[in-house]
Amino acid sequence: MKTLTALLVSATMLGPLTIKEQGSFFVGGENKSINGGDVTVNQMYVQYQIPMKGGQHVPVVMVHGCCLSSKTWETTPDGRIGWSEYFVRKDRSVYLADQVSRARSGFDAQQYLDVRAGKVPADKMPNIINATHQVAWLVFRFGPKYGEVFPDEQFPMQAADEFYKQVIPDLNATLGPEPRATWQQMAALGVKLNGAILMGHSESGFFPEQAALINPAGIRGNISIEMPCVTNFSQQQLATLAKIPTLVMFGDHLGDVTGGGPANWAQSFATCNTFVDQLKKAGGDAVMMHLPTMGIKGNSHMLMQDRNSDQLADLVISWIDTHVEKRK
Amino acid sequence: MKTLTALLVSATMLGPLTIKEQGSFFVGGENKSINGGDVTVNQMYVQYQIPMKGGQHVPVVMVHGCCLSSKTWETTPDGRIGWSEYFVRKDRSVYLADQVSRARSGFDAQQYLDVRAGKVPADKMPNIINATHQVAWLVFRFGPKYGEVFPDEQFPMQAADEFYKQVIPDLNATLGPEPRATWQQMAALGVKLNGAILMGHSESGFFPEQAALINPAGIRGNISIEMPCVTNFSQQQLATLAKIPTLVMFGDHLGDVTGGGPANWAQSFATCNTFVDQLKKAGGDAVMMHLPTMGIKGNSHMLMQDRNSDQLADLVISWIDTHVEKRK
Repeated sequence: MKTLTALLVSATMLGPLTIKEQGSFFVGGENKSINGGDVTVNQMYVQYQIPMKGGQHVPVVMVHGCCLSSKTWETTPDGRIGWSEYFVRKDRSVYLADQVSRARSGFDAQQYLDVRAGKVPADKMPNIINATHQVAWLVFRFGPKYGEVFPDEQFPMQAADEFYKQVIPDLNATLGPEPRATWQQMAALGVKLNGAILMGHSESGFFPEQAALINPAGIRGNISIEMPCVTNFSQQQLATLAKIPTLVMFGDHLGDVTGGGPANWAQSFATCNTFVDQLKKAGGDAVMMHLPTMGIKGNSHMLMQDRNSDQLADLVISWIDTHVEKRK
Repeated sequence: MKTLTALLVSATMLGPLTIKEQGSFFVGGENKSINGGDVTVNQMYVQYQIPMKGGQHVPVVMVHGCCLSSKTWETTPDGRIGWSEYFVRKDRSVYLADQVSRARSGFDAQQYLDVRAGKVPADKMPNIINATHQVAWLVFRFGPKYGEVFPDEQFPMQAADEFYKQVIPDLNATLGPEPRATWQQMAALGVKLNGAILMGHSESGFFPEQAALINPAGIRGNISIEMPCVTNFSQQQLATLAKIPTLVMFGDHLGDVTGGGPANWAQSFATCNTFVDQLKKAGGDAVMMHLPTMGIKGNSHMLMQDRNSDQLADLVISWIDTHVEKRK
């Protein structure tokens, strides 16, 4: 009940929201023949809201990270509005995509059914990432070790149990070594929208860049939040990426998890600094927002759900206004 | 592009939508210890919108059927608004739940990982329902056989490929013989909302009744669309269900699929007529809406997406007004 009550309080304070249009659709998807007929795989589910003044701004596509769904961007675990509604209230059209092979996008079940039927050995079954609370604590940087919270932690730790409910099995291994289908659908969505800003986080943090390398035509800006960056692109690839304004964002305590934890955020940060420098050298407009360097302390890996999530959203929107929309 | 264009036309015709509040949350969920720690399972993801006048009406909880997600209730395959937005535009608060083990609710992956690790034999892996286009055609009653459409078919067949994208793997077998966790969370959601109408469809069609037998306290009305009904309840169970106004709805061509197809809708209809009679004999307010008997022809199993979906929504809303809200 506490969460619902918090929702009511939060939303009542904000006042009514008028939207021009909302709905959902799929991008991509192809037929796969299985024993008994055909199924559709690789489609990407997208849910959207267009505010009344949405036409004045470039739409924003938000894609969640590992073991999560588009829930990432909705109501926070402690019941505040998430970036999805916040951006809509700031007159931005928002498109939430469930990664291909996750949540409402579905996945290719035949790979599991073939094991069940004895046609494929069990150890060839694509892995499923089943992130435990203990792993999440470290990867999402709630504190230096499980059960211990950073003194300035911005994640609403009183609602950690609500966050764990957002963590769902990750079937990206069904897509092969690269989640290319999601990159393709993100690029296609940009084209469909006649121009969009792509935002990724963690597992999907670098998906905007990968989408741009498939087809940059519909991509007006890339926002990459907390992930390892690729640093060995060719000059031609860098030239493509440098044409797209790029924002990279990292929170706090990147090197403060004991033993580094399962994710090495300090190293990821280093690779992204290199990538940003490479984009700049290629003539690109690339910005690294390292929050603690800007005086904003204690942000977790789930910074869009942190207590200061509105403040961080404003930083992103300000970057869009300055770096993407002034170029129009 | 056709779908997006259709969306734009459809939504523009409807005009802006003002909502009082929206968001998402989880109901239920419990810790499960696995090798490496704890994961949360059995939580149910719920997405909601409360219109400005939502407080004047009883909220409606909509739960999708087999191999589908809450997408069922959103934008139709041919780009019209679905029941979710339609009900909101008719001043009803709407709560869309992804069934436990599906979509954004996640599922218990450990049962698959144990097979992958060789701890459990492959044939003990919980089944995954992977509905093919060919099966969907028959079960959802697009026509008498695959590739052939009923002359008066109401499903927007030009968008059948968009519908197939909504079909995702069904992992309900991970929940055991009964999807009890979903029933429990539906009952709990009714209590949380301080009273709600539960609506189920197909696989979930009888979930409202099952939820009521767990805890009827928060259930103000049950709407069951196209499913087999249980006809051997005890007098005590029927007495509980008879206290809740109940609407059962069936479309057309129930016996017209060649060989009956994988689902026997004519038999399901017969069991539900029996159930409705049993409720009435127990003093209940139970209504069977068999659409062709009412002169409404050609409706498929996905009647909330059929071309006359607005008309059918009005029938449901009218039933709510008369049978649930007049009792207040």
